[in-house]
Amino acid sequence: MLNEKNVKLGKVRSSIRELFEYGKKRKAEIGEDKVFDFSLGNPSVPVPGEVTEILTGLLKDCDPVALHGYTSAPGDYSVRKSLADYANSQYGTHLTADCFYMTCGASASLTATLNALLNEGEEVITFVPCFPEYKVFCEHAGGKLICVDTREDDFQIDFEKFERALGDKTKAVLINSPNNPSGVVYSEQSIKKLSKILLDFSKKRGSPVYLISDEPYRELVYDDSIKVPCVMNYYDKSIICYSYSKSLSLPGERIGYVAVNNAMEEWQDVFAGVCGAGRALGFVCAPNLFQQLVARTCGMTSDISIYKKNRDRLCSALQSFGFTVVKPDGAFYLFVKSPEPDANAFAERAKKYEILIVSGDDFGRKGYVRICYCVSPEMIERSLPAFKALKDSYK
Amino acid sequence: MLNEKNVKLGKVRSSIRELFEYGKKRKAEIGEDKVFDFSLGNPSVPVPGEVTEILTGLLKDCDPVALHGYTSAPGDYSVRKSLADYANSQYGTHLTADCFYMTCGASASLTATLNALLNEGEEVITFVPCFPEYKVFCEHAGGKLICVDTREDDFQIDFEKFERALGDKTKAVLINSPNNPSGVVYSEQSIKKLSKILLDFSKKRGSPVYLISDEPYRELVYDDSIKVPCVMNYYDKSIICYSYSKSLSLPGERIGYVAVNNAMEEWQDVFAGVCGAGRALGFVCAPNLFQQLVARTCGMTSDISIYKKNRDRLCSALQSFGFTVVKPDGAFYLFVKSPEPDANAFAERAKKYEILIVSGDDFGRKGYVRICYCVSPEMIERSLPAFKALKDSYK
Repeated sequence: MLNEKNVKLGKVRSSIRELFEYGKKRKAEIGEDKVFDFSLGNPSVPVPGEVTEILTGLLKDCDPVALHGYTSAPGDYSVRKSLADYANSQYGTHLTADCFYMTCGASASLTATLNALLNEGEEVITFVPCFPEYKVFCEHAGGKLICVDTREDDFQIDFEKFERALGDKTKAVLINSPNNPSGVVYSEQSIKKLSKILLDFSKKRGSPVYLISDEPYRELVYDDSIKVPCVMNYYDKSIICYSYSKSLSLPGERIGYVAVNNAMEEWQDVFAGVCGAGRALGFVCAPNLFQQLVARTCGMTSDISIYKKNRDRLCSALQSFGFTVVKPDGAFYLFVKSPEPDANAFAERAKKYEILIVSGDDFGRKGYVRICYCVSPEMIERSLPAFKALKDSYK
Repeated sequence: MLNEKNVKLGKVRSSIRELFEYGKKRKAEIGEDKVFDFSLGNPSVPVPGEVTEILTGLLKDCDPVALHGYTSAPGDYSVRKSLADYANSQYGTHLTADCFYMTCGASASLTATLNALLNEGEEVITFVPCFPEYKVFCEHAGGKLICVDTREDDFQIDFEKFERALGDKTKAVLINSPNNPSGVVYSEQSIKKLSKILLDFSKKRGSPVYLISDEPYRELVYDDSIKVPCVMNYYDKSIICYSYSKSLSLPGERIGYVAVNNAMEEWQDVFAGVCGAGRALGFVCAPNLFQQLVARTCGMTSDISIYKKNRDRLCSALQSFGFTVVKPDGAFYLFVKSPEPDANAFAERAKKYEILIVSGDDFGRKGYVRICYCVSPEMIERSLPAFKALKDSYK
């Protein structure tokens, strides 16, 4: 009688959210410091002090009617202009304010983009492991998510498998680099190769495949040698979905954007589609106070050096306990091989040690778990004996 | 190739938004004070001073990681508890935190609710004139909006017409009182009658019709004798969609809620449907800072006495110029009879006098225009000669 699909989605919470709720309950039961919660990508590093200062300043100095009033549906023009100018200065693009549509975060960026592009039955290819909600978003937009396995050893794109997945119904390819949950960053070479394949295929087929780049972790890379290439410089029919949740530690405030590459001929149509989809989905405008904030913090990030330390400490500790870990280049996730074939059973067993980690099954890759290391270094230290005991329990 | 429906939605902006954009341009051309912009329900009264104080206090005193972090998908539990307690104290309901789903404003409340209830082809009945986006939201959810005309003289529900519209496919009735654009408030008697018809019809058909009450203007009534009845007290299968945009003058910050009446047997399924729909639409959680705010401002409103003064001044001035106006009980809109049959032509002519008003055609009622009086009293005074000249131009 009700919309059973959505009722089911609401009941079967994403297992990440499920574990997050479990963790909240468990912490209330046995104490905050007794639970080692690696479930959710909720940044542990606070916003930069400047963010609080800017927000306080906006509240103090701005006319509240304008500050809290509606903006244009795609966002405040001057905000979008600032973001375009910053992007151009960083990536050598030629974007304008009119390429930017401000959103309530990355999920909203993705749903607006997918609903702009997809018609019933069209396919979106992504590389697994991937964020589980991609499937939910694609299906709500009438499309189908096609999951292509990445390479066994390093989670990089397997181009042979990818080419086999391209077909008549392929409308878009959705990439996420730095990747949730693997932490992998796609190199310039990979993006070039991907772009060439897409261009050749589009030409041959006579209709374009769009490249959607989901980039909430763009700034979260930990070695100077690692660069996250801007897809717009390699592929014209590209759209960037961005969020400030991770880079500025603002996940609860829901602020991000869609940027449509104006190097493609039909960019204004794509942009109109994003605006129309945003309207139909019930997004009126992105939160104004946080729009104003992000225009004033271009290039600013939280202190991500802590994540680097966390990565290094946790990687080497887990390796020393006997876990198989690929050291990630970015984001704040470790994708660790389960000591038993069933990663769900492993994640369940971890709970007995008060360790909360998400089974990789939910990310489309069996036999792995995701460990979010956007936590306090202290919690990592406290958790290490539990991780050791967990591993030893398999002896 | 793209999703043409959404591209079209993005290009053909809602005419309200269209006029809003025109107004911004026109003000830049001839000066802010020369344009009489009655186009958008953007409150002119600032947030209460306490709002700014509370926001500043939260930024100063709270742990920024918690303050800006993800909440549970339906919202922070303690926030929802506060809202439930407040609702119960006001309306004698027995709601709990688990009945409340925090949203990014009224549009998000509506899309989440409609996507929870509707299956392909099911119908939602509403009374026109109504907010034009209802149609967009229903259609995106796979449903169809059935518009039932209200009474000629006072825009109240025409129950005969309503009963004729009920049918096999009717899934829900969507009401909006105080009403945008007519300003009409449905009396207790009307809500009782509506509820009885729905109950009788549901029984006879053997399946329920849900009542969705869109209430962003709930607090905006201007006479002590006028009460907005709480639908939950009259009809079990009811859902309230609320927003703080108008009552607290926060339209750009996108904060509101869905409240599911736990007096209905299946309320947990309906609530799960709302959560699932929110997830599929790309809403992760409502903005956390503003969730915290609204928990601390229960019952607070901006200084709405200014709107009452505006209503009284504008009503009597327009009547004295010869316009036909029904004095509205609530919201901040006048729905004024067009001096010529074509309200679009009238709204276009008004532009020549720098008056920006929206044709009632967009609200499903021909021959009227909507005038938003949530503007400064000074602008109303300045606009009066223009209104007089506009009316006189029809002599």
